[in-house]
Amino acid sequence: MTEHYLDNSATTAVCREAAEKTLEMMTVKYGNPSSLHNKGMEAEEETEKARDIIAKSLGVSPEEIFFTSGGTEANNTAIIGAARAAKRKGNKIVISAVEHSSVLETAQSLEKDGFEIVKIFPDAEGHINIKDIDEAIDEKTILVSVMTVNNETGAIFPTDRIAKIIKRKKSPALFHTDCVQAYGKIPVKASKLGADMITVSAHKVHGPKGVGALYIRKGVRILPLIHGGEQQKKIRPGTEAVPLICGFGAAVSMFEIDDNYNKVVALRNYTLENLLKVDGVEVNSPKDCLPYIINLSVLGIKSETMLHFLASTGVYVSSSSACAKGQKSYVLKAMRLSDQRIDSALRISFSKYSTKEDADALIQGIISGCNSLVRKK
Amino acid sequence: MTEHYLDNSATTAVCREAAEKTLEMMTVKYGNPSSLHNKGMEAEEETEKARDIIAKSLGVSPEEIFFTSGGTEANNTAIIGAARAAKRKGNKIVISAVEHSSVLETAQSLEKDGFEIVKIFPDAEGHINIKDIDEAIDEKTILVSVMTVNNETGAIFPTDRIAKIIKRKKSPALFHTDCVQAYGKIPVKASKLGADMITVSAHKVHGPKGVGALYIRKGVRILPLIHGGEQQKKIRPGTEAVPLICGFGAAVSMFEIDDNYNKVVALRNYTLENLLKVDGVEVNSPKDCLPYIINLSVLGIKSETMLHFLASTGVYVSSSSACAKGQKSYVLKAMRLSDQRIDSALRISFSKYSTKEDADALIQGIISGCNSLVRKK
Repeated sequence: MTEHYLDNSATTAVCREAAEKTLEMMTVKYGNPSSLHNKGMEAEEETEKARDIIAKSLGVSPEEIFFTSGGTEANNTAIIGAARAAKRKGNKIVISAVEHSSVLETAQSLEKDGFEIVKIFPDAEGHINIKDIDEAIDEKTILVSVMTVNNETGAIFPTDRIAKIIKRKKSPALFHTDCVQAYGKIPVKASKLGADMITVSAHKVHGPKGVGALYIRKGVRILPLIHGGEQQKKIRPGTEAVPLICGFGAAVSMFEIDDNYNKVVALRNYTLENLLKVDGVEVNSPKDCLPYIINLSVLGIKSETMLHFLASTGVYVSSSSACAKGQKSYVLKAMRLSDQRIDSALRISFSKYSTKEDADALIQGIISGCNSLVRKK
Repeated sequence: MTEHYLDNSATTAVCREAAEKTLEMMTVKYGNPSSLHNKGMEAEEETEKARDIIAKSLGVSPEEIFFTSGGTEANNTAIIGAARAAKRKGNKIVISAVEHSSVLETAQSLEKDGFEIVKIFPDAEGHINIKDIDEAIDEKTILVSVMTVNNETGAIFPTDRIAKIIKRKKSPALFHTDCVQAYGKIPVKASKLGADMITVSAHKVHGPKGVGALYIRKGVRILPLIHGGEQQKKIRPGTEAVPLICGFGAAVSMFEIDDNYNKVVALRNYTLENLLKVDGVEVNSPKDCLPYIINLSVLGIKSETMLHFLASTGVYVSSSSACAKGQKSYVLKAMRLSDQRIDSALRISFSKYSTKEDADALIQGIISGCNSLVRKK
């Protein structure tokens, strides 16, 4: 059975270039980058090459890039690290209510230490209103963490306007944005975003699982989450995961953001055009969302039922975030969608490698599902 | 030039079996183990197979194994997690003075939260006396963290007696042991050690860098260091690094502890026999240490000078821990060795793949170094 993998917001296949680089670093250039001999130095050189690639992709300097074990650790480092470093300046943290769980739960974990978490809710279309963020920020706010693209709906948030608000309000707040879903799909530039910290992850962009990066603007002080050796200026010690870091670099060096964007827009439009003809299909993603993600509901058919039906035809999609295995989507809940819409939601997520054949298999699968599965009205 | 890599305590080459498994999981079975479809389930199955292998190697059950990004994160999770969970019971943490920096500095980071860190110093041979540990443990001790094998000298510490002392003293202390250097080389069994938590790492046992595991005995409660998704019972959330985890499992499934031990003992004895004939060579490792590590000094020749000379002949060794790049060894300092000994120390570390040719190249290299390098008396 041919596989049609349309769950690329959960994770992606590692591209050939990244897989080959990872393999080389495991078996040939396997030294410890902290070792003083040639074997260590060649591993260090390759690690720094990868750091350069990631830095360049974000328009920042390599000294501002810190490798972590993934998006979750990068988000934790940014939020806990910033909060602990700034606790004398204020106690308010502003986030959106639809952040990834690694932002949401990390922020909430700080409540017991006296921090107040202010959550901004999206509207029914999934948009976050910049006015709500503006109103929430004050002189007690020490951190604003709002994602650039939502992982369930693909909604694009106005993160490029937050830094200006912080400045205008003379707030001491740092601005962090989780760009895990935006990275590699739309331009993510630190200067344009005005961000103090940016989270990215390899396995959403055809790099390996187990590595991510946190950009920390030069001059921004955060306290480390993890203690130990001298690596990465002690902000994130531990032997660098060289094979993964280099695989990440290789994946990022393959970015062709504009070309892929246009290709995926065409694929998304084709898919939507056909799916909207199906009785009971309603789209939950906003119209101006990232084209890589379509969140829709097939009313009357439970997400899991349709998901498993599609999987039986080789088409892989998800119900909500993979990280919230099997739970009801808190993102769609925050949008105040009806229970019926939430219970039947599917997330289709394309990659730059997705094809018309994948889209056709999905469309055919959903039509077949609607014909053969019993709908609850 | 043939490479003779004798820095296996810093990191190891990934074995064929682990590299192949990692590659397969990156490019074929690349799903997210939290995804509900087949592609996710096959990734989850492989992840759980690896968890079973690691669990079996430690004589524990798979539910007690938590994958981390490496030894450093596992040590941080154990120490910070245990301290935060137990802060009402007491404030004393007992460690050895020669722990890896990820234990030493993590424990020290807790001092600002009111914890008292009691350090046990080794004797001149590098041994830790069990009586010193016994005296340090009391009813206020909430954690004892002592490594099973020291990473610089190979000294084996009496960790299998600590649990009994804690029990006899009716101390509320948990017992954690960093087994990164012991794992795969001598039997590491949770029941024999009586440990509540054990740290192991993949890249020291021919698995990939970027993954480790923390054993947490069932019933032991620690607070998580990282917050986020539902993965790993929320003790260590974040998308599992499936390729690394499965590569780790493949490496561990190749363990042949007894056979390799005997082979390496012979190699160590042969190496030492020849090196002790060289004028000015003094051994810093205790006689009964792990045979995989020889710490010695070539008096009058600085560590870095000899290290670079050896590297020029294709022989790779280290001066001290790779994680303390270029710094003076705090382990040898704690043993109160002379500055001359410390300044000229080398760590030679074998793996199960090391050969007589490697040993001969090292011996020849040190002899040549002694003949051609200028000694400071």
